[in-house]
Amino acid sequence: MQYSSRYLEELIEHLSRLPTIGKKTAQRLAFYLLRCDEQEALDLSRAIHRIRQEVGTCERCGNIAETQPCYLCSDVRREAGILCVVEQPGDVVAVEKSGAFRGHYHVLRGALSPLDGVGPDDLRIRELYQRVQDEDVREVILATNPTAQGEATAHFLHQNLVDRGVQVTRIARGVPVGADLELSDQVTLARALEGRKEM
Amino acid sequence: MQYSSRYLEELIEHLSRLPTIGKKTAQRLAFYLLRCDEQEALDLSRAIHRIRQEVGTCERCGNIAETQPCYLCSDVRREAGILCVVEQPGDVVAVEKSGAFRGHYHVLRGALSPLDGVGPDDLRIRELYQRVQDEDVREVILATNPTAQGEATAHFLHQNLVDRGVQVTRIARGVPVGADLELSDQVTLARALEGRKEM
Repeated sequence: MQYSSRYLEELIEHLSRLPTIGKKTAQRLAFYLLRCDEQEALDLSRAIHRIRQEVGTCERCGNIAETQPCYLCSDVRREAGILCVVEQPGDVVAVEKSGAFRGHYHVLRGALSPLDGVGPDDLRIRELYQRVQDEDVREVILATNPTAQGEATAHFLHQNLVDRGVQVTRIARGVPVGADLELSDQVTLARALEGRKEM
Repeated sequence: MQYSSRYLEELIEHLSRLPTIGKKTAQRLAFYLLRCDEQEALDLSRAIHRIRQEVGTCERCGNIAETQPCYLCSDVRREAGILCVVEQPGDVVAVEKSGAFRGHYHVLRGALSPLDGVGPDDLRIRELYQRVQDEDVREVILATNPTAQGEATAHFLHQNLVDRGVQVTRIARGVPVGADLELSDQVTLARALEGRKEM
């Protein structure tokens, strides 16, 4: 036994499975959790438990939700007829933070990835088509990630959505604001040039 | 509300209180905990809960323990009469990993820090004196951190222990193995020169 407590060893083991947390950080976090205010540690334990036991998925948009539909879907001040399609719930947070979108969301819960065995039926794509039809959607903004999988998903959705008579747009890919052109990769720069606009 | 779930918001809040975890990483971890295998998340929750509810302190050495005394204190193969004094339980792990010590430990659970209101009575110092007397200790190795607080604690303990007729040693401070002299700070280099030994 490397640690003087089996439970400590198990906690370090569980913590080190989290993304961005290596063995060293896991050990540091575990010792912190041992030393910190007891309520703080128990609160964290309960928060993790609760998020898996009491948080569900909005049946309409696929975002995480505690109510049906979620608070974004039921917000009547949001613009109807325009859907922003993203891969994961975290992407909704990112788009919301930008403050540039006031319509509704549709969370696919992933991206097409044939190599990983993820096909159209594994994503919330059928639900998207249904919403486009039912909610009288006039524009679908494809905001999947600018990665191979995200682009493939956007292409697939574009092909299938245009036939349904809806306008399909894709978020711009270009040099990020504040970045240095010299340090931009060639694919991003090529996209930025292709996507240039009249000033 | 920034997130679509109050519970998610609370989890991110709790995670971001952990050391080395900023708001961005906390969000990433929270979304991971939402997405990962449910058992994995619940196991982590239970491991955190358990470490505060079922792991205690060894009454003898002050290390974290599930038994009284802890497995290190009750290990008869370890050398008696030699105590390694450290600040925190994590330091025991570090010394154990070095494989260079086979005696017993004494965990102070902190270091003297008058500015933070931490005096001798706030640490397990009285217990140390008692052990030196009861366990017929011949050497005390002071392995507190090479920081201002750790050095102050070592000085304080040295003054009080020599009167009790015990040999008191301090771990060597010098250039770390594998380091570059050019990049060593001046205090460390001065210590390394002071602490030089015949080859």
